[in-house]
Amino acid sequence: MRIILVGYGVVGQNLTNMFLHRRQETVKDYGLNPKVVAIVDKGGAAINPKGLDLEKMLTIKKRGSTIAADKEFGVRDMSPLKVITSTEAEVVVEASSTNVKNGEPGLSHIKTAFKAGMHVVTTNKGPLALAFPALTDLAEYNKVFFRFSGTVGGGTPVLELAKKCLAGDRITATRGILNGTTNYILTEMSEKHVPFDEVLESAQKLGYAETDPSMDIDGTDAACKVVILANWIMNKKITLKDLDVKGIRGVTLADLEKAAMRGNTIKLIGTINGKARVAPTEISRSDPLCVSGVLNAVTFVSEFAGEVTIIGRGAGGPETASAVLRDLLDIRYNLADKLLT
Amino acid sequence: MRIILVGYGVVGQNLTNMFLHRRQETVKDYGLNPKVVAIVDKGGAAINPKGLDLEKMLTIKKRGSTIAADKEFGVRDMSPLKVITSTEAEVVVEASSTNVKNGEPGLSHIKTAFKAGMHVVTTNKGPLALAFPALTDLAEYNKVFFRFSGTVGGGTPVLELAKKCLAGDRITATRGILNGTTNYILTEMSEKHVPFDEVLESAQKLGYAETDPSMDIDGTDAACKVVILANWIMNKKITLKDLDVKGIRGVTLADLEKAAMRGNTIKLIGTINGKARVAPTEISRSDPLCVSGVLNAVTFVSEFAGEVTIIGRGAGGPETASAVLRDLLDIRYNLADKLLT
Repeated sequence: MRIILVGYGVVGQNLTNMFLHRRQETVKDYGLNPKVVAIVDKGGAAINPKGLDLEKMLTIKKRGSTIAADKEFGVRDMSPLKVITSTEAEVVVEASSTNVKNGEPGLSHIKTAFKAGMHVVTTNKGPLALAFPALTDLAEYNKVFFRFSGTVGGGTPVLELAKKCLAGDRITATRGILNGTTNYILTEMSEKHVPFDEVLESAQKLGYAETDPSMDIDGTDAACKVVILANWIMNKKITLKDLDVKGIRGVTLADLEKAAMRGNTIKLIGTINGKARVAPTEISRSDPLCVSGVLNAVTFVSEFAGEVTIIGRGAGGPETASAVLRDLLDIRYNLADKLLT
Repeated sequence: MRIILVGYGVVGQNLTNMFLHRRQETVKDYGLNPKVVAIVDKGGAAINPKGLDLEKMLTIKKRGSTIAADKEFGVRDMSPLKVITSTEAEVVVEASSTNVKNGEPGLSHIKTAFKAGMHVVTTNKGPLALAFPALTDLAEYNKVFFRFSGTVGGGTPVLELAKKCLAGDRITATRGILNGTTNYILTEMSEKHVPFDEVLESAQKLGYAETDPSMDIDGTDAACKVVILANWIMNKKITLKDLDVKGIRGVTLADLEKAAMRGNTIKLIGTINGKARVAPTEISRSDPLCVSGVLNAVTFVSEFAGEVTIIGRGAGGPETASAVLRDLLDIRYNLADKLLT
């Protein structure tokens, strides 16, 4: 399977590292023989139709330079779109950074790959949050697979649990803690009685929150994941603009103390139940959703199996890369199926 | 798909009820057209090669009489083994009651079905706990599928999460709360400070515990599930006799109070980590495993995706029947695959 890797940050590097060290298993157990024919970063690309030397690529990247610095196969300033349209491959792994304003550059990468007849695996929430229905239609029209397990829950198989393990059942509602940063802040506020601003500051120092923390604390990141869950799991054709979104800036220590007196706490919950929304919500401390620290948790309410909750880390390089690997295995499996029909 | 249903208790009845009311979806969405050609209960069987009238079967059963009372297709005192060997079908759904002494009669039902070339779906832990490695070998030898999702977690897709959603990853350890009755008892003891004997008595009155509660409180039920997880998920060829098993009879209010002072509580935990065992174990209250009431919870420790926990009800008729339906869909899917190769 020839792969173009667009974006070579922590997820991309972890993925190539897995390819290097787990090749034997992926080939033997799953019939997946990944060959990375191109890697693109902000400085340009490295392209080799016979497959790049991943050990070398990782070394170049660790030096802090662009992948285009590779003497043999580097091409400075070559754009991702140019790489996608001019390189032969079966799959594009789109791991560029998220932008919820217009979804770019990820949105163009994905659309261009579809039109070139390539399957796409992405970890980029932006394009999905803004254009999920259009993107899945375009993938279908071009008869290619589109997978994005790493966009919800990092390495925790949230989307896969609902899609693969609750077959034959009907999911009637979904609710979840979908952002680790805000959950860390609310946990610290609740357990250590430290006000919002102070916790945010220490979270930034610890690297749990970004310098511009608004994507997390204003609920946008969680909202993107709600859009993906709503479309993929509950077949609702919505985008980010259809959601009511409220972040955690307004949550005070007094609110948390009042909730605690009722045996509850306040979490930033994304809900899909008729309407889809994100808001700070009081939940029982004995609700399985009530996880602490940077964990994520999602409860699927199903007609027959009842309420099923999945919990795990919602982010992290190796974790998210493992979701990309699972998506590639899934595409490989479905392709084998297709060849036989 | 022609099905022989052995055992017509709460799970079997819920399954036929699902067949009746979800036929359109199972046929349209999954290509599964279930035709129940025989049902066996303790009084005999009802057999119709063209497919039994399930509405009628449910009515007969609700009157409290044996299924063999059906005037047209009933056969009094016909044994399950006779039905399996003399009726043409693709799948046997084995839902007779659990026996961990010698696995019978379920064990013979399953072996007979395999030898007759039939796939088997079971909700019966006994045969698996005593003979998992031998049974999977026998299924493989006879080239039939063997599924048992309902034996761990009721309708909660515990086995499926590990098998289908963590592909490409490596599960290095598993631990879980696998028995709802003991978890209910420990929760009540811990939260309401009522001693073991009193809670057990009220649990029996509420129907959460059996008149003979030893399967649950001595840890045997949890141990059966550990055997299944160890074999199916972690590829360890063990049976019930290989486990160290300790139940909750010895847990006192003083133990729980001491644990509480450390921010912990005591749960009956099944662990597979090198060795497999079941024992009351102190865990942190903020551990995602720490669920209350009759819930079950299992954490899979994976190499890349990290710790992933699944939580849900561990029992119940409709829930467990939904696991049987998923297994049937899975067999249907794999058969379609096989036909193409």
